[in-house]
Amino acid sequence: MSDDPARAAPLTVGVLGGMGPAATIDFMAKVLRHSQAGAAREQDNVRLIVDSNPALPDRNAAIAGTGPSPAPMLAEMARGLAAAGADVLVMPCNAAHAFADAVIAATPLPFLHLIEEAVDTVARSHPAARRIGVLAVAGAVEAQLYERALAARSLLPVVPDPTARAAFMAAIWQIKASDLAAGRDGVLAAAMRLVEQGAEVVVAGCTEVPLVLGPADLAVPLIDTVDVLARRTVEVARGAGVSNEWVSTHP
Amino acid sequence: MSDDPARAAPLTVGVLGGMGPAATIDFMAKVLRHSQAGAAREQDNVRLIVDSNPALPDRNAAIAGTGPSPAPMLAEMARGLAAAGADVLVMPCNAAHAFADAVIAATPLPFLHLIEEAVDTVARSHPAARRIGVLAVAGAVEAQLYERALAARSLLPVVPDPTARAAFMAAIWQIKASDLAAGRDGVLAAAMRLVEQGAEVVVAGCTEVPLVLGPADLAVPLIDTVDVLARRTVEVARGAGVSNEWVSTHP
Repeated sequence: MSDDPARAAPLTVGVLGGMGPAATIDFMAKVLRHSQAGAAREQDNVRLIVDSNPALPDRNAAIAGTGPSPAPMLAEMARGLAAAGADVLVMPCNAAHAFADAVIAATPLPFLHLIEEAVDTVARSHPAARRIGVLAVAGAVEAQLYERALAARSLLPVVPDPTARAAFMAAIWQIKASDLAAGRDGVLAAAMRLVEQGAEVVVAGCTEVPLVLGPADLAVPLIDTVDVLARRTVEVARGAGVSNEWVSTHP
Repeated sequence: MSDDPARAAPLTVGVLGGMGPAATIDFMAKVLRHSQAGAAREQDNVRLIVDSNPALPDRNAAIAGTGPSPAPMLAEMARGLAAAGADVLVMPCNAAHAFADAVIAATPLPFLHLIEEAVDTVARSHPAARRIGVLAVAGAVEAQLYERALAARSLLPVVPDPTARAAFMAAIWQIKASDLAAGRDGVLAAAMRLVEQGAEVVVAGCTEVPLVLGPADLAVPLIDTVDVLARRTVEVARGAGVSNEWVSTHP
């Protein structure tokens, strides 16, 4: 962390992770891949400080009002990452962005917002698409994370109906428990249902989705939000700016 | 971090990483695998705080006296991890253990020593073996990291001769540059040469080795030191003790 606005890149990126741990590892591997594309030596890769904290209270239960809020622990993690030397923060978990304000308020560091970056990428890479499918867990849907970000760009969200949502959630728990084969079946079914409902693009709005689903699995483009965040993380670490202007509009 | 000796497990593990970044990701994946074996819920996995810092000065050059020492930056990383909340430190890089003293001196936290743990595992799991092959990079060989730890247990190190060492080092740089196929050929050749020299067990004394070589590749047992450290990390996080008694004997 530095107070000098003119400090040279690269920046050190603090990662609020562990939600789940496999998704954090996937994010780090993707940062490394994008990082190596522009790195001549090992020393040129991006420095990440990662708090992989699986003890964080369940985001879905908190959003549903049936469990404690993860906000205080997220704020503590953000402060710890700042103390360890992070210059900018990211959080590779979609549902946890319902508590992004707590992370942003905890330190003076800029925060690279997964949902905003993902929806920006959709709008930029598929400008003709209007109906955007979102494969998100119950908490993310309830908190309307993607719905609001899409609406702000005049895009229409296509989300699983309540029955499909329960089946999708069960599949995500299977992936978190390392049963990738069973989880993949459930995630693929949910994605295909969104396409039937008219989705022209599908956003993998849960970091567990890209662990089992790839672009070749669907007839429409699939946006890997972990990969979007990883690519932007490398850009920001190498000196691209990050703006927090959306903060006030997404409470 | 806590001063209460009776504090309950689990402990938070601070990881000095990025040497290289792919080896750190491999270590985290192995911690997750061993962690899940005893975890009923995502929340039961081990909390890791990881500083994946590829900017650390080259260990081999430092040991050879041709580059700056990584010790000051390692000490800074250790202090940062302590500030972020780590209770115990590990460093999944063999050669960096030539600078373990700087890490140990930087904070009051206990340090789980990769080389000592690896050699303990060899002695325990293969009690009849006397000649132990060590696939290590130039710096680790020059610093005699494994030679000393093996000698302390009356075991005989079998290391690559200078020509084989240069070829092995070239293979490790290929792996770090993501050319796994070419790197694997060089690593496999070096391992087979150690077996020809009489090694009864081969220790993967470089964290890049397990990225390309598995137990099925050799006629003798292969010790994955990343896996040994990951397994011990989970045990320690769950309450097993860690002793620093070897510190004074391995300057």
